[in-house]
Amino acid sequence: MDKLFIIKIGGNVIDSPELLDDFLCRFAKIKGKKILVHGGGKLATRLAEKLGVPQELIDGRRITDQETLRIVTMVYAGQINKTIVAALQAKDCNAIGVTGADGNLILAHKRKASIDYGYVGDIDSINTLQLRNLLEQHDAVVIAPITHNGEGQLLNTNADTIAQELARGASSFVDTTLIYCFEKKGVLKDTNDESSVIRQITPNSYLQLKQEQLNNKPIISEGMIPKIENALKAVHQGVVRVIIGQAQEIELLINGNAGTVLQNE
Amino acid sequence: MDKLFIIKIGGNVIDSPELLDDFLCRFAKIKGKKILVHGGGKLATRLAEKLGVPQELIDGRRITDQETLRIVTMVYAGQINKTIVAALQAKDCNAIGVTGADGNLILAHKRKASIDYGYVGDIDSINTLQLRNLLEQHDAVVIAPITHNGEGQLLNTNADTIAQELARGASSFVDTTLIYCFEKKGVLKDTNDESSVIRQITPNSYLQLKQEQLNNKPIISEGMIPKIENALKAVHQGVVRVIIGQAQEIELLINGNAGTVLQNE
Repeated sequence: MDKLFIIKIGGNVIDSPELLDDFLCRFAKIKGKKILVHGGGKLATRLAEKLGVPQELIDGRRITDQETLRIVTMVYAGQINKTIVAALQAKDCNAIGVTGADGNLILAHKRKASIDYGYVGDIDSINTLQLRNLLEQHDAVVIAPITHNGEGQLLNTNADTIAQELARGASSFVDTTLIYCFEKKGVLKDTNDESSVIRQITPNSYLQLKQEQLNNKPIISEGMIPKIENALKAVHQGVVRVIIGQAQEIELLINGNAGTVLQNE
Repeated sequence: MDKLFIIKIGGNVIDSPELLDDFLCRFAKIKGKKILVHGGGKLATRLAEKLGVPQELIDGRRITDQETLRIVTMVYAGQINKTIVAALQAKDCNAIGVTGADGNLILAHKRKASIDYGYVGDIDSINTLQLRNLLEQHDAVVIAPITHNGEGQLLNTNADTIAQELARGASSFVDTTLIYCFEKKGVLKDTNDESSVIRQITPNSYLQLKQEQLNNKPIISEGMIPKIENALKAVHQGVVRVIIGQAQEIELLINGNAGTVLQNE
Protein backbone atom coordinates (compact mmCIF):
# COMPACT_ATOMS: atom_id res chain seq x y z
CA MET A 1 0.00 0.00 0.00
CA ASP A 2 1.54 3.23 -1.19
CA LYS A 3 -0.69 6.09 -0.18
CA LEU A 4 -3.99 6.48 1.60
CA PHE A 5 -6.49 9.31 1.29
CA ILE A 6 -9.13 9.64 3.98
CA ILE A 7 -11.85 11.97 2.80
CA LYS A 8 -14.73 13.20 4.91
CA ILE A 9 -17.76 14.62 3.16
CA GLY A 10 -20.58 16.43 4.88
CA GLY A 11 -24.20 17.33 4.44
CA ASN A 12 -23.74 19.79 1.58
CA VAL A 13 -22.57 16.93 -0.68
CA ILE A 14 -24.77 14.13 0.69
CA ASP A 15 -27.95 16.17 0.49
CA SER A 16 -27.47 16.91 -3.22
CA PRO A 17 -27.69 13.89 -5.57
CA GLU A 18 -25.88 15.91 -8.27
CA LEU A 19 -22.99 17.02 -6.03
CA LEU A 20 -22.73 13.51 -4.57
CA ASP A 21 -22.57 11.84 -7.98
CA ASP A 22 -20.03 14.39 -9.20
CA PHE A 23 -17.91 13.82 -6.11
CA LEU A 24 -18.12 10.01 -6.35
CA CYS A 25 -16.95 10.15 -10.01
CA ARG A 26 -13.89 12.08 -8.89
CA PHE A 27 -13.37 9.94 -5.80
CA ALA A 28 -13.48 6.70 -7.84
CA LYS A 29 -10.66 7.98 -10.05
CA ILE A 30 -8.24 8.84 -7.23
CA LYS A 31 -5.16 6.65 -7.55
CA GLY A 32 -4.22 4.75 -4.42
CA LYS A 33 -6.33 3.46 -1.57
CA LYS A 34 -9.04 5.63 -0.10
CA ILE A 35 -11.51 5.86 2.72
CA LEU A 36 -14.71 7.85 2.49
CA VAL A 37 -16.27 8.93 5.78
CA HIS A 38 -19.75 10.32 5.35
CA GLY A 39 -21.96 12.21 7.72
CA GLY A 40 -25.69 12.02 7.54
CA GLY A 41 -26.83 15.31 6.12
CA LYS A 42 -30.42 16.31 6.57
CA LEU A 43 -31.82 12.88 5.71
CA ALA A 44 -31.86 11.69 9.31
CA THR A 45 -33.52 14.90 10.50
CA ARG A 46 -36.12 14.58 7.76
CA LEU A 47 -36.88 10.95 8.62
CA ALA A 48 -37.17 11.83 12.30
CA GLU A 49 -39.66 14.57 11.40
CA LYS A 50 -41.75 12.17 9.32
CA LEU A 51 -41.76 9.65 12.17
CA GLY A 52 -42.59 12.31 14.73
CA VAL A 53 -39.41 11.77 16.74
CA PRO A 54 -38.42 15.17 18.15
CA GLN A 55 -34.77 16.07 17.59
CA GLU A 56 -32.79 18.04 20.11
CA LEU A 57 -29.44 19.63 19.29
CA ILE A 58 -27.06 21.07 21.86
CA ASP A 59 -24.09 22.99 20.43
CA GLY A 60 -24.78 21.42 17.06
CA ARG A 61 -24.69 17.91 18.50
CA ARG A 62 -27.66 15.63 18.19
CA ILE A 63 -29.04 14.22 21.41
CA THR A 64 -29.39 10.55 20.53
CA ASP A 65 -32.19 8.77 22.34
CA GLN A 66 -33.06 5.19 21.42
CA GLU A 67 -35.46 6.14 18.63
CA THR A 68 -32.93 8.59 17.18
CA LEU A 69 -30.18 5.96 17.30
CA ARG A 70 -32.43 3.65 15.31
CA ILE A 71 -33.02 6.42 12.77
CA VAL A 72 -29.36 7.35 12.31
CA THR A 73 -28.39 3.69 12.06
CA MET A 74 -30.98 3.19 9.33
CA VAL A 75 -30.08 6.35 7.43
CA TYR A 76 -26.28 6.38 7.83
CA ALA A 77 -25.43 2.66 7.78
CA GLY A 78 -28.32 1.64 5.51
CA GLN A 79 -29.52 4.20 3.02
CA ILE A 80 -26.53 6.52 2.58
CA ASN A 81 -23.74 3.98 3.01
CA LYS A 82 -25.21 1.41 0.61
CA THR A 83 -26.25 4.00 -1.98
CA ILE A 84 -22.66 5.28 -2.05
CA VAL A 85 -21.19 1.76 -2.25
CA ALA A 86 -23.46 0.76 -5.15
CA ALA A 87 -22.63 4.03 -6.96
CA LEU A 88 -18.89 3.43 -6.53
CA GLN A 89 -19.21 -0.14 -7.80
CA ALA A 90 -20.82 1.28 -10.95
CA LYS A 91 -17.78 3.54 -11.34
CA ASP A 92 -15.36 0.60 -11.25
CA CYS A 93 -14.32 1.30 -7.70
CA ASN A 94 -14.56 -1.84 -5.56
CA ALA A 95 -15.91 -0.36 -2.33
CA ILE A 96 -17.07 -1.95 0.90
CA GLY A 97 -19.27 -0.09 3.35
CA VAL A 98 -18.94 -0.58 7.09
CA THR A 99 -19.66 0.90 10.50
CA GLY A 100 -17.34 0.82 13.49
CA ALA A 101 -19.08 -2.35 14.71
CA ASP A 102 -18.15 -4.34 11.60
CA GLY A 103 -15.00 -6.32 12.21
CA ASN A 104 -14.76 -4.40 15.48
CA LEU A 105 -13.26 -1.51 13.49
CA ILE A 106 -13.98 1.34 15.93
CA LEU A 107 -14.51 0.83 19.63
CA ALA A 108 -16.13 3.66 21.55
CA HIS A 109 -17.84 4.38 24.84
CA LYS A 110 -21.03 6.25 25.63
CA ARG A 111 -20.12 9.87 26.24
CA LYS A 112 -19.82 10.84 29.87
CA ALA A 113 -20.70 14.53 30.24
CA SER A 114 -22.76 16.86 32.36
CA ILE A 115 -25.31 16.89 29.55
CA ASP A 116 -26.78 13.48 28.69
CA TYR A 117 -26.12 13.12 24.96
CA GLY A 118 -27.73 9.68 24.94
CA TYR A 119 -26.24 7.07 22.61
CA VAL A 120 -23.33 9.21 21.45
CA GLY A 121 -19.93 7.56 21.27
CA ASP A 122 -16.44 8.86 22.03
CA ILE A 123 -13.77 6.78 20.33
CA ASP A 124 -11.45 4.53 22.35
CA SER A 125 -9.53 2.75 19.62
CA ILE A 126 -9.19 1.92 15.94
CA ASN A 127 -8.56 -1.67 14.88
CA THR A 128 -5.70 -0.93 12.48
CA LEU A 129 -5.28 -4.58 11.46
CA GLN A 130 -8.92 -4.72 10.36
CA LEU A 131 -8.56 -1.36 8.60
CA ARG A 132 -5.49 -2.54 6.76
CA ASN A 133 -7.13 -5.82 5.71
CA LEU A 134 -10.19 -4.02 4.37
CA LEU A 135 -8.00 -1.62 2.42
CA GLU A 136 -5.81 -4.38 1.01
CA GLN A 137 -8.82 -6.16 -0.42
CA HIS A 138 -10.83 -3.22 -1.72
CA ASP A 139 -10.21 0.00 -3.61
CA ALA A 140 -12.20 1.98 -1.07
CA VAL A 141 -13.78 1.64 2.35
CA VAL A 142 -16.92 3.70 2.98
CA ILE A 143 -17.56 4.40 6.65
CA ALA A 144 -20.85 5.36 8.28
CA PRO A 145 -20.50 7.35 11.53
CA ILE A 146 -21.81 4.60 13.81
CA THR A 147 -19.54 2.82 16.29
CA HIS A 148 -20.08 0.28 19.07
CA ASN A 149 -18.99 -0.25 22.65
CA GLY A 150 -18.10 -3.94 22.40
CA GLU A 151 -21.04 -4.80 24.61
CA GLY A 152 -23.67 -4.80 21.92
CA GLN A 153 -24.50 -1.09 21.96
CA LEU A 154 -24.32 0.92 18.74
CA LEU A 155 -23.30 4.56 19.20
CA ASN A 156 -23.79 7.67 17.05
CA THR A 157 -20.34 9.17 16.53
CA ASN A 158 -19.06 12.41 15.02
CA ALA A 159 -17.86 11.80 11.47
CA ASP A 160 -15.05 14.40 11.67
CA THR A 161 -13.64 12.64 14.71
CA ILE A 162 -13.93 9.22 13.05
CA ALA A 163 -11.96 10.52 10.06
CA GLN A 164 -9.33 12.00 12.35
CA GLU A 165 -8.93 8.83 14.43
CA LEU A 166 -8.80 6.62 11.32
CA ALA A 167 -6.06 8.87 9.90
CA ARG A 168 -4.14 8.62 13.13
CA GLY A 169 -4.44 4.81 13.09
CA ALA A 170 -3.62 4.46 9.39
CA SER A 171 -0.56 6.68 9.72
CA SER A 172 1.12 3.80 11.57
CA PHE A 173 1.23 1.73 8.36
CA VAL A 174 0.78 4.04 5.36
CA ASP A 175 1.42 7.61 4.19
CA THR A 176 -1.94 9.14 5.02
CA THR A 177 -3.59 12.36 3.87
CA LEU A 178 -6.74 13.44 5.68
CA ILE A 179 -9.11 15.68 3.73
CA TYR A 180 -12.10 17.46 5.22
CA CYS A 181 -14.55 18.64 2.56
CA PHE A 182 -16.99 21.40 3.40
CA GLU A 183 -18.85 24.25 1.65
CA LYS A 184 -15.91 26.63 1.24
CA LYS A 185 -12.75 26.37 -0.85
CA GLY A 186 -10.66 26.28 2.34
CA VAL A 187 -10.11 28.31 5.48
CA LEU A 188 -10.83 31.86 4.28
CA LYS A 189 -9.28 35.13 5.41
CA ASP A 190 -12.55 36.77 4.47
CA THR A 191 -15.56 34.44 4.70
CA ASN A 192 -17.25 36.38 1.90
CA ASP A 193 -14.32 36.01 -0.49
CA GLU A 194 -13.67 32.50 -1.84
CA SER A 195 -10.38 33.71 -3.30
CA SER A 196 -8.97 34.47 0.16
CA VAL A 197 -8.06 30.85 1.01
CA ILE A 198 -5.25 30.60 3.57
CA ARG A 199 -3.00 28.09 1.82
CA GLN A 200 -1.14 26.80 4.82
CA ILE A 201 -1.68 26.65 8.56
CA THR A 202 0.84 25.34 11.07
CA PRO A 203 0.33 25.03 14.83
CA ASN A 204 2.24 28.31 15.25
CA SER A 205 0.57 30.26 12.47
CA TYR A 206 -2.80 29.16 13.87
CA LEU A 207 -2.05 30.83 17.21
CA GLN A 208 -1.36 34.04 15.31
CA LEU A 209 -4.40 33.71 13.03
CA LYS A 210 -6.65 33.29 16.02
CA GLN A 211 -5.66 36.79 17.18
CA GLU A 212 -6.02 38.51 13.80
CA GLN A 213 -9.04 40.47 12.77
CA LEU A 214 -10.51 41.62 9.47
CA ASN A 215 -13.12 44.43 9.50
CA ASN A 216 -13.25 44.17 13.29
CA LYS A 217 -14.15 40.49 13.12
CA PRO A 218 -11.90 37.56 13.94
CA ILE A 219 -10.51 35.93 10.79
CA ILE A 220 -11.14 32.45 12.13
CA SER A 221 -14.90 32.22 12.49
CA GLU A 222 -16.33 30.36 15.44
CA GLY A 223 -17.63 27.54 13.26
CA MET A 224 -14.15 26.92 11.83
CA ILE A 225 -12.42 26.59 15.19
CA PRO A 226 -13.38 22.93 15.95
CA LYS A 227 -12.57 21.94 12.34
CA ILE A 228 -9.09 23.47 12.46
CA GLU A 229 -8.37 22.22 15.95
CA ASN A 230 -9.46 18.69 14.96
CA ALA A 231 -7.13 18.92 11.97
CA LEU A 232 -4.20 20.19 14.04
CA LYS A 233 -4.84 17.45 16.58
CA ALA A 234 -4.49 14.91 13.78
CA VAL A 235 -1.23 16.56 12.66
CA HIS A 236 0.01 16.51 16.25
CA GLN A 237 -0.85 12.79 16.40
CA GLY A 238 1.28 11.97 13.40
CA VAL A 239 -0.92 12.48 10.35
CA VAL A 240 1.46 14.00 7.80
CA ARG A 241 -1.01 16.41 6.25
CA VAL A 242 -4.60 17.49 6.66
CA ILE A 243 -6.34 19.44 3.92
CA ILE A 244 -9.54 21.44 4.21
CA GLY A 245 -11.45 22.34 1.05
CA GLN A 246 -14.29 21.68 -1.34
CA ALA A 247 -15.44 18.25 -2.58
CA GLN A 248 -15.76 19.67 -6.13
CA GLU A 249 -12.02 20.33 -6.11
CA ILE A 250 -10.89 16.99 -4.71
CA GLU A 251 -8.17 16.40 -7.36
CA LEU A 252 -6.69 19.85 -6.73
CA LEU A 253 -6.82 19.28 -2.97
CA ILE A 254 -4.95 16.00 -3.30
CA ASN A 255 -2.27 17.58 -5.47
CA GLY A 256 -1.84 20.45 -3.07
CA ASN A 257 -3.17 22.96 -5.59
CA ALA A 258 -6.21 24.09 -3.64
CA GLY A 259 -7.56 24.28 -0.13
CA THR A 260 -5.84 24.88 3.17
CA VAL A 261 -3.04 22.50 4.11
CA LEU A 262 -2.44 21.95 7.80
CA GLN A 263 0.89 20.44 8.77
CA ASN A 264 3.89 20.93 11.02
CA GLU A 265 6.33 23.62 9.86
CA MET B 1 -11.06 -23.10 6.33
CA ASP B 2 -12.53 -26.35 7.49
CA LYS B 3 -16.26 -26.08 7.48
CA LEU B 4 -18.82 -23.41 6.70
CA PHE B 5 -22.34 -23.09 8.01
CA ILE B 6 -24.72 -20.78 6.18
CA ILE B 7 -27.75 -20.08 8.32
CA LYS B 8 -30.81 -18.20 7.21
CA ILE B 9 -33.13 -16.81 9.87
CA GLY B 10 -36.54 -15.35 9.19
CA GLY B 11 -39.07 -13.02 10.67
CA ASN B 12 -40.07 -15.21 13.63
CA VAL B 13 -36.56 -14.80 15.09
CA ILE B 14 -35.83 -11.23 13.96
CA ASP B 15 -39.12 -9.87 15.27
CA SER B 16 -38.51 -11.19 18.79
CA PRO B 17 -35.59 -9.59 20.69
CA GLU B 18 -35.53 -12.58 23.07
CA LEU B 19 -35.46 -15.25 20.35
CA LEU B 20 -32.88 -13.23 18.40
CA ASP B 21 -30.58 -12.86 21.39
CA ASP B 22 -30.94 -16.53 22.24
CA PHE B 23 -30.16 -17.50 18.67
CA LEU B 24 -27.14 -15.17 18.43
CA CYS B 25 -25.68 -16.68 21.63
CA ARG B 26 -25.89 -20.11 20.04
CA PHE B 27 -24.69 -18.87 16.67
CA ALA B 28 -21.61 -17.18 18.19
CA LYS B 29 -20.56 -20.50 19.75
CA ILE B 30 -20.70 -22.56 16.55
CA LYS B 31 -17.20 -23.81 15.76
CA GLY B 32 -15.97 -23.04 12.27
CA LYS B 33 -16.80 -20.23 9.90
CA LYS B 34 -20.37 -19.09 9.50
CA ILE B 35 -22.62 -16.85 7.48
CA LEU B 36 -25.88 -15.46 8.79
CA VAL B 37 -28.43 -14.38 6.20
CA HIS B 38 -31.30 -12.44 7.69
CA GLY B 39 -34.61 -11.43 6.25
CA GLY B 40 -36.40 -8.34 7.36
CA GLY B 41 -39.29 -9.52 9.47
CA LYS B 42 -42.13 -7.16 10.11
CA LEU B 43 -39.89 -4.15 10.82
CA ALA B 44 -39.90 -2.95 7.22
CA THR B 45 -43.66 -3.31 6.95
CA ARG B 46 -44.09 -1.41 10.20
CA LEU B 47 -41.79 1.43 9.09
CA ALA B 48 -43.62 1.65 5.76
CA GLU B 49 -46.91 1.94 7.64
CA LYS B 50 -45.56 4.73 9.83
CA LEU B 51 -44.28 6.58 6.78
CA GLY B 52 -47.54 6.05 4.91
CA VAL B 53 -45.93 4.10 2.10
CA PRO B 54 -48.50 1.52 0.94
CA GLN B 55 -47.13 -2.01 0.66
CA GLU B 56 -48.31 -4.40 -2.00
CA LEU B 57 -47.59 -8.12 -1.85
CA ILE B 58 -48.16 -10.53 -4.74
CA ASP B 59 -47.74 -14.23 -3.88
CA GLY B 60 -45.95 -13.22 -0.69
CA ARG B 61 -43.44 -11.08 -2.57
CA ARG B 62 -43.12 -7.41 -1.81
CA ILE B 63 -43.55 -5.04 -4.74
CA THR B 64 -40.56 -2.76 -4.28
CA ASP B 65 -41.09 0.77 -5.54
CA GLN B 66 -38.43 3.42 -4.93
CA GLU B 67 -39.76 4.40 -1.50
CA THR B 68 -40.01 0.77 -0.43
CA LEU B 69 -36.46 0.09 -1.62
CA ARG B 70 -35.28 2.97 0.55
CA ILE B 71 -37.18 1.50 3.51
CA VAL B 72 -35.85 -2.05 3.13
CA THR B 73 -32.31 -0.74 2.61
CA MET B 74 -32.59 1.26 5.84
CA VAL B 75 -34.16 -1.56 7.84
CA TYR B 76 -32.27 -4.58 6.49
CA ALA B 77 -28.79 -3.11 5.80
CA GLY B 78 -28.93 -0.51 8.58
CA GLN B 79 -30.99 -1.36 11.63
CA ILE B 80 -31.15 -5.17 11.58
CA ASN B 81 -27.72 -5.88 10.11
CA LYS B 82 -25.82 -3.55 12.44
CA THR B 83 -27.79 -4.56 15.53
CA ILE B 84 -26.88 -8.19 14.85
CA VAL B 85 -23.20 -7.36 14.17
CA ALA B 86 -22.87 -5.36 17.41
CA ALA B 87 -24.58 -8.15 19.37
CA LEU B 88 -22.22 -10.77 17.91
CA GLN B 89 -19.18 -8.62 18.72
CA ALA B 90 -20.37 -8.58 22.34
CA LYS B 91 -20.45 -12.38 22.24
CA ASP B 92 -16.81 -12.61 21.11
CA CYS B 93 -17.76 -13.37 17.55
CA ASN B 94 -15.91 -11.08 15.14
CA ALA B 95 -18.65 -10.41 12.61
CA ILE B 96 -18.83 -8.12 9.61
CA GLY B 97 -22.15 -7.08 8.09
CA VAL B 98 -22.55 -6.56 4.36
CA THR B 99 -25.00 -6.37 1.48
CA GLY B 100 -24.47 -7.79 -1.99
CA ALA B 101 -23.16 -4.38 -3.14
CA ASP B 102 -20.26 -4.41 -0.67
CA GLY B 103 -17.14 -5.71 -2.35
CA ASN B 104 -19.42 -6.58 -5.27
CA LEU B 105 -20.42 -9.73 -3.37
CA ILE B 106 -23.72 -10.47 -5.13
CA LEU B 107 -24.55 -9.23 -8.60
CA ALA B 108 -28.20 -9.31 -9.62
CA HIS B 109 -30.55 -7.90 -12.23
CA LYS B 110 -33.96 -6.32 -11.91
CA ARG B 111 -36.54 -9.06 -12.25
CA LYS B 112 -38.12 -9.36 -15.66
CA ALA B 113 -41.63 -10.75 -15.28
CA SER B 114 -45.17 -10.17 -16.44
CA ILE B 115 -45.82 -8.50 -13.09
CA ASP B 116 -43.63 -5.46 -12.38
CA TYR B 117 -42.04 -6.29 -9.03
CA GLY B 118 -40.12 -3.00 -9.05
CA TYR B 119 -36.62 -3.01 -7.57
CA VAL B 120 -36.48 -6.75 -6.92
CA GLY B 121 -33.29 -8.55 -7.85
CA ASP B 122 -32.67 -11.99 -9.30
CA ILE B 123 -29.13 -13.17 -8.66
CA ASP B 124 -26.60 -13.47 -11.48
CA SER B 125 -23.43 -14.36 -9.61
CA ILE B 126 -21.64 -14.65 -6.29
CA ASN B 127 -18.14 -13.22 -5.93
CA THR B 128 -16.59 -16.28 -4.26
CA LEU B 129 -13.17 -14.63 -3.91
CA GLN B 130 -14.72 -11.77 -1.93
CA LEU B 131 -16.76 -14.25 0.13
CA ARG B 132 -13.69 -16.29 0.93
CA ASN B 133 -11.66 -13.22 1.91
CA LEU B 134 -14.39 -11.98 4.22
CA LEU B 135 -14.64 -15.41 5.84
CA GLU B 136 -10.90 -15.76 6.24
CA GLN B 137 -10.70 -12.50 8.15
CA HIS B 138 -13.81 -12.76 10.31
CA ASP B 139 -15.57 -15.38 12.39
CA ALA B 140 -18.87 -14.57 10.75
CA VAL B 141 -20.35 -12.63 7.84
CA VAL B 142 -23.84 -11.21 8.34
CA ILE B 143 -25.70 -10.61 5.09
CA ALA B 144 -28.65 -8.30 4.50
CA PRO B 145 -30.90 -9.29 1.59
CA ILE B 146 -29.99 -6.34 -0.63
CA THR B 147 -27.98 -6.79 -3.83
CA HIS B 148 -26.95 -4.51 -6.70
CA ASN B 149 -26.87 -4.61 -10.49
CA GLY B 150 -23.36 -3.21 -10.96
CA GLU B 151 -24.80 -0.05 -12.43
CA GLY B 152 -25.52 1.70 -9.17
CA GLN B 153 -28.95 0.24 -8.50
CA LEU B 154 -29.63 -1.52 -5.18
CA LEU B 155 -32.14 -4.39 -5.40
CA ASN B 156 -34.36 -6.08 -2.82
CA THR B 157 -33.58 -9.80 -2.99
CA ASN B 158 -35.12 -12.90 -1.45
CA ALA B 159 -33.06 -14.00 1.56
CA ASP B 160 -33.71 -17.73 1.00
CA THR B 161 -32.32 -17.44 -2.51
CA ILE B 162 -29.30 -15.46 -1.31
CA ALA B 163 -28.52 -18.19 1.22
CA GLN B 164 -28.89 -20.85 -1.45
CA GLU B 165 -26.66 -19.05 -3.98
CA LEU B 166 -24.02 -18.31 -1.34
CA ALA B 167 -24.01 -22.01 -0.38
CA ARG B 168 -23.61 -22.96 -4.01
CA GLY B 169 -20.68 -20.53 -4.42
CA ALA B 170 -19.01 -21.49 -1.13
CA SER B 171 -19.26 -25.20 -1.93
CA SER B 172 -16.52 -24.63 -4.52
CA PHE B 173 -13.96 -23.95 -1.75
CA VAL B 174 -15.27 -25.33 1.54
CA ASP B 175 -17.51 -28.09 2.96
CA THR B 176 -20.76 -26.13 3.25
CA THR B 177 -23.92 -26.84 5.21
CA LEU B 178 -26.95 -24.67 4.45
CA ILE B 179 -29.52 -24.32 7.23
CA TYR B 180 -32.94 -22.75 6.82
CA CYS B 181 -34.50 -21.80 10.15
CA PHE B 182 -38.25 -21.32 10.36
CA GLU B 183 -41.07 -21.69 12.90
CA LYS B 184 -41.31 -25.48 12.86
CA LYS B 185 -38.88 -28.16 14.01
CA GLY B 186 -38.52 -29.36 10.42
CA VAL B 187 -40.69 -30.56 7.55
CA LEU B 188 -43.62 -32.19 9.37
CA LYS B 189 -45.74 -35.16 8.33
CA ASP B 190 -48.56 -33.61 10.31
CA THR B 191 -48.33 -29.81 10.54
CA ASN B 192 -50.05 -29.93 13.94
CA ASP B 193 -47.58 -32.40 15.41
CA GLU B 194 -44.06 -31.09 16.03
CA SER B 195 -42.89 -34.62 16.74
CA SER B 196 -43.66 -35.73 13.19
CA VAL B 197 -40.50 -34.29 11.64
CA ILE B 198 -39.46 -36.04 8.43
CA ARG B 199 -35.79 -36.64 9.18
CA GLN B 200 -34.54 -36.99 5.64
CA ILE B 201 -35.66 -35.98 2.19
CA THR B 202 -33.92 -36.91 -1.04
CA PRO B 203 -34.91 -35.79 -4.54
CA ASN B 204 -36.65 -39.15 -5.00
CA SER B 205 -38.40 -39.32 -1.64
CA TYR B 206 -39.69 -35.78 -2.24
CA LEU B 207 -41.50 -36.88 -5.40
CA GLN B 208 -43.24 -39.56 -3.34
CA LEU B 209 -43.97 -37.26 -0.41
CA LYS B 210 -45.63 -34.77 -2.74
CA GLN B 211 -48.23 -37.43 -3.64
CA GLU B 212 -48.92 -38.58 -0.07
CA GLN B 213 -51.85 -37.42 1.95
CA LEU B 214 -52.71 -37.35 5.64
CA ASN B 215 -56.36 -36.89 6.66
CA ASN B 216 -57.18 -36.10 3.04
CA LYS B 217 -54.67 -33.26 2.96
CA PRO B 218 -51.31 -33.28 1.18
CA ILE B 219 -48.45 -33.90 3.62
CA ILE B 220 -46.31 -31.22 2.02
CA SER B 221 -48.22 -28.00 2.62
CA GLU B 222 -48.25 -25.38 -0.09
CA GLY B 223 -46.09 -23.01 1.96
CA MET B 224 -43.36 -25.63 2.34
CA ILE B 225 -43.04 -26.38 -1.37
CA PRO B 226 -40.81 -23.41 -2.35
CA LYS B 227 -38.64 -23.98 0.75
CA ILE B 228 -38.07 -27.65 -0.05
CA GLU B 229 -37.57 -27.03 -3.74
CA ASN B 230 -35.04 -24.24 -3.00
CA ALA B 231 -33.21 -26.66 -0.72
CA LEU B 232 -33.21 -29.46 -3.27
CA LYS B 233 -32.02 -27.02 -5.92
CA ALA B 234 -29.04 -26.22 -3.66
CA VAL B 235 -28.35 -29.96 -3.23
CA HIS B 236 -28.58 -30.41 -6.98
CA GLN B 237 -26.09 -27.56 -7.41
CA GLY B 238 -23.50 -29.23 -5.21
CA VAL B 239 -24.30 -28.16 -1.65
CA VAL B 240 -23.58 -31.31 0.37
CA ARG B 241 -26.44 -30.90 2.82
CA VAL B 242 -29.33 -28.60 3.52
CA ILE B 243 -31.13 -28.68 6.84
CA ILE B 244 -34.51 -27.22 7.68
CA GLY B 245 -35.42 -26.62 11.31
CA GLN B 246 -35.80 -24.28 14.24
CA ALA B 247 -33.32 -21.54 15.25
CA GLN B 248 -33.71 -22.59 18.91
CA GLU B 249 -32.26 -25.98 18.02
CA ILE B 250 -29.34 -24.78 15.92
CA GLU B 251 -26.73 -26.99 17.67
CA LEU B 252 -28.88 -30.09 17.16
CA LEU B 253 -29.48 -29.14 13.54
CA ILE B 254 -25.74 -28.81 12.92
CA ASN B 255 -25.02 -32.17 14.51
CA GLY B 256 -27.73 -33.83 12.50
CA ASN B 257 -29.82 -34.55 15.59
CA ALA B 258 -32.85 -32.50 14.67
CA GLY B 259 -34.62 -31.03 11.67
CA THR B 260 -35.05 -32.32 8.18
CA VAL B 261 -31.88 -33.09 6.23
CA LEU B 262 -32.08 -32.76 2.47
CA GLN B 263 -29.35 -34.45 0.47
CA ASN B 264 -28.72 -36.83 -2.39
CA GLU B 265 -29.28 -40.51 -1.57
